[in-house]
Amino acid sequence: MTGDITLLGYGVSAIGPAIAVGLIFAAYINGVARQPEAQGKLQPIAILGFALAEALAIFGLVLFFIAFFV
Amino acid sequence: MTGDITLLGYGVSAIGPAIAVGLIFAAYINGVARQPEAQGKLQPIAILGFALAEALAIFGLVLFFIAFFV
Amino acid sequence: MTGDITLLGYGVSAIGPAIAVGLIFAAYINGVARQPEAQGKLQPIAILGFALAEALAIFGLVLFFIAFFV
Repeated sequence: MTGDITLLGYGVSAIGPAIAVGLIFAAYINGVARQPEAQGKLQPIAILGFALAEALAIFGLVLFFIAFFV
Repeated sequence: MTGDITLLGYGVSAIGPAIAVGLIFAAYINGVARQPEAQGKLQPIAILGFALAEALAIFGLVLFFIAFFV
Repeated sequence: MTGDITLLGYGVSAIGPAIAVGLIFAAYINGVARQPEAQGKLQPIAILGFALAEALAIFGLVLFFIAFFV
C-alpha cells in the first residue's frame, strides 16, 4: 500500500463545512423565494454563517500543508 | 493490500460538497416551483452557494495532485 | 489482508453525488407534482444541478484510473 494518508485529514474536515454551506444557502434560497424583499436582511446572515462554517475547512487546508511539508 | 490510499482523501472531501450542491439545487427548484417569477433572484444565490461549496472539493482535487505527484 | 485500496477512494467520492442527485430529482418531482406547467422551467435547473453534482464523482473515476495505472 502506497500513498499519503495526510490528505484524508483534509477530506474529513471538509465534510461538515460543505454540508453546512449547503444547509445555509438552501435556507437562504427558501427565505428569498418566500419573501423576495427580505433578501437585504438575509444576505449578511448567510454570508456570516458561510464564513464561520468554511473556516473549519480552511483550517484543515492549512494544517494539511503544515503536516505535508513540515 | 495494495493500491494507493491518497485517492481516499479526495473521495472523502467530495462527500460534503456534493450533498451541499444537492441541498442548494433542491431549494432552488422548490423556490422556482413555488414562485416562477423569483428565478432571477434565486439563480445568483444558487450559483454562489454552489461555487462556495464546490470549492472545498476542488481544494481536495488540487491537494490530491500535490500529495500524489509531489 | 489482500485487495486494492484505491477503489475505496472512488467509492467514497460517489456517496455525496448520488445523494445530491436524489435530492435534486426529488425536489424536481415535487415541483412538477405541485405545478405541472412549471416543468419547462424546472427541467434545465434539475439537469444543471445533476451535472454539477455528478462531476465530483466523475473526478473520482478519472483519479482512480490515474492512481491505479500511473
